[in-house]
Amino acid sequence: MRNTLVVLGCLVIGATAGAFQFANAQMASDTVSVARYAPDGRLIRPDGWRTWIYVGTPLTPNELNNGKAAFPEFHSVYIEPRAYAIYKRTGTFPDGTMLIKELVSVGSKEAASGKGYFMGEFIGFEVAIKDSKRYPKAPGGWAYYSFGHHKPPYAKLAKAQKHEACSACHQANAAEDFVFTQYYPVLRAARPKK
Amino acid sequence: MRNTLVVLGCLVIGATAGAFQFANAQMASDTVSVARYAPDGRLIRPDGWRTWIYVGTPLTPNELNNGKAAFPEFHSVYIEPRAYAIYKRTGTFPDGTMLIKELVSVGSKEAASGKGYFMGEFIGFEVAIKDSKRYPKAPGGWAYYSFGHHKPPYAKLAKAQKHEACSACHQANAAEDFVFTQYYPVLRAARPKK
Repeated sequence: MRNTLVVLGCLVIGATAGAFQFANAQMASDTVSVARYAPDGRLIRPDGWRTWIYVGTPLTPNELNNGKAAFPEFHSVYIEPRAYAIYKRTGTFPDGTMLIKELVSVGSKEAASGKGYFMGEFIGFEVAIKDSKRYPKAPGGWAYYSFGHHKPPYAKLAKAQKHEACSACHQANAAEDFVFTQYYPVLRAARPKK
Repeated sequence: MRNTLVVLGCLVIGATAGAFQFANAQMASDTVSVARYAPDGRLIRPDGWRTWIYVGTPLTPNELNNGKAAFPEFHSVYIEPRAYAIYKRTGTFPDGTMLIKELVSVGSKEAASGKGYFMGEFIGFEVAIKDSKRYPKAPGGWAYYSFGHHKPPYAKLAKAQKHEACSACHQANAAEDFVFTQYYPVLRAARPKK
């Protein structure tokens, strides 16, 4: 399937500069550079993340957290495909890795399948980027951005959050390089076997 | 990003028969034909679904269902990318649409972010395929397959389940063409605007 999609792309697009850019990035040092920034340094909201690689969905509903969960929504977490490809090969997140956290409301608590949690509407969009060169002072090289906690359209630009807003919790509790892979079976399964 | 991946594919793979097959399928009648079958008619387990388009995650945990939920796991639901592309354009699921339901255990009920539900391990794999020509007697043309409710590796081949095992509930309760799009915000957002 993937091959067929890829081949279709060939017919439509042909070879462009992008290919050489990617090939160079891979050969150079296992980095990817998908992020784009405005002249003032703010991150430009990436496009197309709903076709990226889904890794998992943590959920901490209000009623299990005294009615006021810090994160009462579903979190749909994605990794950018080129970073995923490198992670599959190396088992580490390369510089340039971009992770997406799209917030989705709890839409329903009962369905034909039983009582539980069913996704409602998109209500927020956040990005984490690892880039030790661009963020030399960020713990682990990870910077965190919020494009708004509301329905789309999300903001087009975002400033990096202060490091202390996100990093400390990721550093203390994430299983692997500031990423909660303990809750992301897709990433654990993708790692190269030792 | 997608374009770059695609172009990389060009360098590696070059043009093959697959491209023409896909181009023909699109031109002909908005059908896709990703499914492969063994000579005895059993469905061959598809590959690579974790890079397909993620659409949503229903969850009906045991403790909300008298300790014995019919489906006590996370359900990671994906759609095959070519069917997704056609759905985005037409708002309907073409013949050949393949949906994946990968079962994921509840691995943890508490994390730094609060009490809730966090994904554990993969524990099952199911497929739904719409193909009104191949399954003329299946309600809506949808056939359902299970490749096992256990950890990977999943079975390589599966027989279609009896129609009554799945169809009646999908037909009665799914918002759209046997698909629970009411719980899949990615698909609702992808639909063409009327």
